[in-house]
Amino acid sequence: MTLTLAPLLAEPLPPTLKGLPACAEGVSLQDLHRLRLSLLDGDLPLPAAVLKASALAHNARWMREFTARAGVSLAPHGKTTMAPQLFQRQFDEGAWGMTAATAAHVRTYRRFGVPRVILANQLVGKADLELVLRELEAEPAFDFYLLVDSSAGLELLRRAALERGLKRPVQVLLEVGTPGGRTGVRSTEEGVALARLIRDASPVIALRGVEAFEGVYSGPETARVELGALTMIETVAELARLGCAEGWFAPGEVLLTAGGSAFFDLAAKTLAAVEAGGTGHALRVVLRSGCYLSHDSLQYERMQDRMKQRAGALWGDGPGLRNAIEVWAHVQSVPEPGRAICTAGRRDLSYDACLPAPLWWYRPGLHEAPQASPPEWSVSKLNDQHAYVDASDGALPLQVGDLIAFGIGHPCTTFDKWPLLYTVDDGYRVTGGVRTFF
Amino acid sequence: MTLTLAPLLAEPLPPTLKGLPACAEGVSLQDLHRLRLSLLDGDLPLPAAVLKASALAHNARWMREFTARAGVSLAPHGKTTMAPQLFQRQFDEGAWGMTAATAAHVRTYRRFGVPRVILANQLVGKADLELVLRELEAEPAFDFYLLVDSSAGLELLRRAALERGLKRPVQVLLEVGTPGGRTGVRSTEEGVALARLIRDASPVIALRGVEAFEGVYSGPETARVELGALTMIETVAELARLGCAEGWFAPGEVLLTAGGSAFFDLAAKTLAAVEAGGTGHALRVVLRSGCYLSHDSLQYERMQDRMKQRAGALWGDGPGLRNAIEVWAHVQSVPEPGRAICTAGRRDLSYDACLPAPLWWYRPGLHEAPQASPPEWSVSKLNDQHAYVDASDGALPLQVGDLIAFGIGHPCTTFDKWPLLYTVDDGYRVTGGVRTFF
Repeated sequence: MTLTLAPLLAEPLPPTLKGLPACAEGVSLQDLHRLRLSLLDGDLPLPAAVLKASALAHNARWMREFTARAGVSLAPHGKTTMAPQLFQRQFDEGAWGMTAATAAHVRTYRRFGVPRVILANQLVGKADLELVLRELEAEPAFDFYLLVDSSAGLELLRRAALERGLKRPVQVLLEVGTPGGRTGVRSTEEGVALARLIRDASPVIALRGVEAFEGVYSGPETARVELGALTMIETVAELARLGCAEGWFAPGEVLLTAGGSAFFDLAAKTLAAVEAGGTGHALRVVLRSGCYLSHDSLQYERMQDRMKQRAGALWGDGPGLRNAIEVWAHVQSVPEPGRAICTAGRRDLSYDACLPAPLWWYRPGLHEAPQASPPEWSVSKLNDQHAYVDASDGALPLQVGDLIAFGIGHPCTTFDKWPLLYTVDDGYRVTGGVRTFF
Repeated sequence: MTLTLAPLLAEPLPPTLKGLPACAEGVSLQDLHRLRLSLLDGDLPLPAAVLKASALAHNARWMREFTARAGVSLAPHGKTTMAPQLFQRQFDEGAWGMTAATAAHVRTYRRFGVPRVILANQLVGKADLELVLRELEAEPAFDFYLLVDSSAGLELLRRAALERGLKRPVQVLLEVGTPGGRTGVRSTEEGVALARLIRDASPVIALRGVEAFEGVYSGPETARVELGALTMIETVAELARLGCAEGWFAPGEVLLTAGGSAFFDLAAKTLAAVEAGGTGHALRVVLRSGCYLSHDSLQYERMQDRMKQRAGALWGDGPGLRNAIEVWAHVQSVPEPGRAICTAGRRDLSYDACLPAPLWWYRPGLHEAPQASPPEWSVSKLNDQHAYVDASDGALPLQVGDLIAFGIGHPCTTFDKWPLLYTVDDGYRVTGGVRTFF
């Protein structure tokens, strides 16, 4: 699957991009590597966000192997990166489709030629419906699915498709939620009732499967959280079995999809075990992790430790995903002992799951390579454009002009702060750039 | 002062902008009003961010009058909006210059022709220095100031200017900080010592004034916070007086600048009272509020109540600034009683100062105009792309398809989530669009 990236790669980089050095203004993405920019030599204005090429390649391959072992497909959530160049890499490593969160995402995906999209969300509102339905109209081969979790939502969708005179059914997935959670039906019973309504909305609407986002469960109480996530996934399995037996689904393949970045092992194991029971439906399990490609240093890194334990043989031999994303800044001020103020803030770094953490520091002229930040260093606070790095032991060797790298927890909320991220080799030389579309 | 906005206004809007309806793809900003888009009629895909034109105009005029009463100048912090079209409005209402936070901001400002910039930050790193120094070189009339708070930072700047062979001095402001705070010298004594070093770096460097960002003080303990902020501002005043007396400053006007969006009244009153004492220096007080133009519904709205009390006659007669910024979404699911899930999340709304709050709701076909959200409604949680609206009394009349408007606390972290915001009239008809450059 080859996306339409040529215009993006050939376009001159606009001089309003943060992180772009003077010498790269007007240069295209495809020529960026020719500049041989070195982060450690000070060639980039900071802050700058970098993706380690080796870790990206490793993670993409790792997920291909994981899904192959599990016998499942992957439609990575593109909302994490909104970077068509990374979508291409995901297709290169065998992705079956992409997942989107909004109608605007679907439009952007289509602009770059993504052929198959799960909109893992409801679609409401005239202008949003128009953005999506016109794509279905424009390209009969565009394979598209979206979620329905209420009769009211179903009716809005049905009416819009009818009014537009759409020539093919809108493919929907029944969304499973959980009491106290986000969207989705609250019980199997609710699911059954809604599924029958969807079936009855044929041929305008085609029920194609069952979906859940079990990642609404999170927090420190591992047992409760895992049980909640697993219960949601099991409800997907149950409704899929019931649906095959009762004939709710449109003829053909039935999708069972769950699996964000925290529990894709649970989703793979549970859903791959579902059987259609001689009903003629082929079942396809689709995981939707968005964060595996960049991974992170904090939130998903911690969750991975637990996932490894849970997954057992399914995990494979290696240590798993590696952090690929870092945000580099300068130390701009060391105003008192034990505190350094750095040139990156809330506009540059995730802070919703946790504050970022120092990973490396580097002093040009002194260090051969970045030095690991001691565990005593932490980010105590972020302002819009500043990070406060404090040392719990009061010993902070940082000086004005030093470089510092931050690791983050939750890639989604770092990617969306960067219209351009650099790919770098292991020596932090720029090998290319990745544009995002938020 | 007229900025270079024509190319921006004439450029076709790219179809990757969130919030852009199908019919506006390829339309230019200057033609957007011709589409007569109505938010309430469902013409915009949601979420969408809107700026109320009447409130923007009111706030811009209000600040002009406030600064006139106080006898001070304004260099609004452009990092709040990063919207050159709004910068133009600020110049139209008498702004003396613009404030920036990063070298990349300075580059963007210069692209749009901003003639005078205070970079309210240190400048460190080869590539960042290059972005700024080349602008000084390219346009002798570009009036630029930046902060110095350490001898190490001073030396980096001096060396970069020397190496570049810059033909004019780099104008710097001595930054005043506070113990336990962000950047800036921690005491008058430190300030005196650094000011003398800066003076001695003449003619490469010219000391042009004293600066503080007193907004590092924040929190619920009003007395402590105000005392802290005031002390920082008073230190600016003290160092300015000492500097005039001791002759640290380069000949000409001396800038005294402080005043973010929370305490600009304190800065205006305190700094406007400073006298140069027959030293031949003219003093100019420059406030730097970034948030006054859009204001907000939560954080600065609360702070304004206190500011009114403090400011007395300086405040003037009226009620003050009005909220201009709202983010609209759809209700996409009402999965259980008392809870509505809406199509806007962390990618759309500020959540650093506080969670957003419902302001209005509107049901097409039922309501003539948006209805005020009852005080029992609140946003209990945000995901990346979803808001959870809960009613404390369990009574939530919202239905799938309803429109809901959120008010935010802290404009800086909402603007940076929107490459395009709409300006709307009081009936929510689109009068134009504002592009941002984050």
